[in-house]
Amino acid sequence: MIRKEKIDELKQILEEYKTVKKEQVFKENMFLTSEAYRYYLNNGSIITREKLLKNKNDGSASIVIPRLENGEFLTVIEPRVYTALTVGVGFPAGYIENGEDPKNAAIRELKEETGYNSNYLIKLDEFYQDEGCSQALNRIYLALDCKKVSKQNLDKDEYIKYMTFNLDELEHLVKNKYIMGVNSKLALEKLYEAEILTASVDNALEKVKILNRVFREER
Amino acid sequence: MIRKEKIDELKQILEEYKTVKKEQVFKENMFLTSEAYRYYLNNGSIITREKLLKNKNDGSASIVIPRLENGEFLTVIEPRVYTALTVGVGFPAGYIENGEDPKNAAIRELKEETGYNSNYLIKLDEFYQDEGCSQALNRIYLALDCKKVSKQNLDKDEYIKYMTFNLDELEHLVKNKYIMGVNSKLALEKLYEAEILTASVDNALEKVKILNRVFREER
Repeated sequence: MIRKEKIDELKQILEEYKTVKKEQVFKENMFLTSEAYRYYLNNGSIITREKLLKNKNDGSASIVIPRLENGEFLTVIEPRVYTALTVGVGFPAGYIENGEDPKNAAIRELKEETGYNSNYLIKLDEFYQDEGCSQALNRIYLALDCKKVSKQNLDKDEYIKYMTFNLDELEHLVKNKYIMGVNSKLALEKLYEAEILTASVDNALEKVKILNRVFREER
Repeated sequence: MIRKEKIDELKQILEEYKTVKKEQVFKENMFLTSEAYRYYLNNGSIITREKLLKNKNDGSASIVIPRLENGEFLTVIEPRVYTALTVGVGFPAGYIENGEDPKNAAIRELKEETGYNSNYLIKLDEFYQDEGCSQALNRIYLALDCKKVSKQNLDKDEYIKYMTFNLDELEHLVKNKYIMGVNSKLALEKLYEAEILTASVDNALEKVKILNRVFREER
């Protein structure tokens, strides 16, 4: 459960970001485009598949779970116009720029969306977001001991507010469908596993050591 | 771990479906298209967002975890041309047709891809696959006591083989990056939770009751 004032604060942000009207627009250059390719398989078969591009790139993203010194987690609240609520709660995330290190993308997006920074970044998992028609390979990071270092730095078209929640509250937000995006949902599953592993360890560096041992890349 | 003959069988299928060459093609009607809309928020702001369409639909999919009477799980192996391996292992899944019940889509895709059927279908979770730019709302189902009832029924361009694995083996496949798609990865997390809940219950109907109690929709 979440105490009433906190859920009221969340609901106020959700109200603010709700969609009240939409209209179609026709743009010259679309962010979402697709290309088709013919693929020759090892067994002699030939198949055609389309590939989704985002801004001409694969659309790989970094998701970051920011953990504060007090043990709470930062979430971002933003318009998600295609969802039932038209607004969503989730972890900070963003596209990896061409040639950018996925770790840097995680830290950059964390700073831009919340103004927080972290010196302890641990990779928890990676996955293809839509393996049938996209090359997007997303990474999930846990950022320990996050500290507020600057203001938010949002794009013109971006509306993001942030709130902190503990693990119980995050579970409440999932059960009540405030958190519905797969990036945040899988991140949360990985976070539960990580929290169980490190529950008895206080020191951040010791946690990094434990987590890196468990989540090291296996090949 | 997986015994050697089984991993060899898997590797043989993976070899068969690997991509050896690709070339771009230009099609009249693309499966992947996008539209742009202007959205008016409750707070007076106006934002533009693009929406991904698949065959003019939202691209919502049903994912089904098929559990056999012996406690093993069915997986499908198919070309995944955008991934590192160019082949992927995962659970049966497919797009929900226009107006189709997501449960029916799960059973239909299970039958088409494997020839198995189930009378016990339990919803484990639902999520937006790419909430920033798509309305795709995917559902994860657990299908208990699956039985082989027919042959596979694949589309012209579809290449799918199936193999069964137990929970330990599935974990091995995730750790070794044979299973990398987010649909199957989140499904597996939900499966672990469900298996823990029902480990001591033998009867399928009793399991359905327990699971429905736990995973019932909360609103």
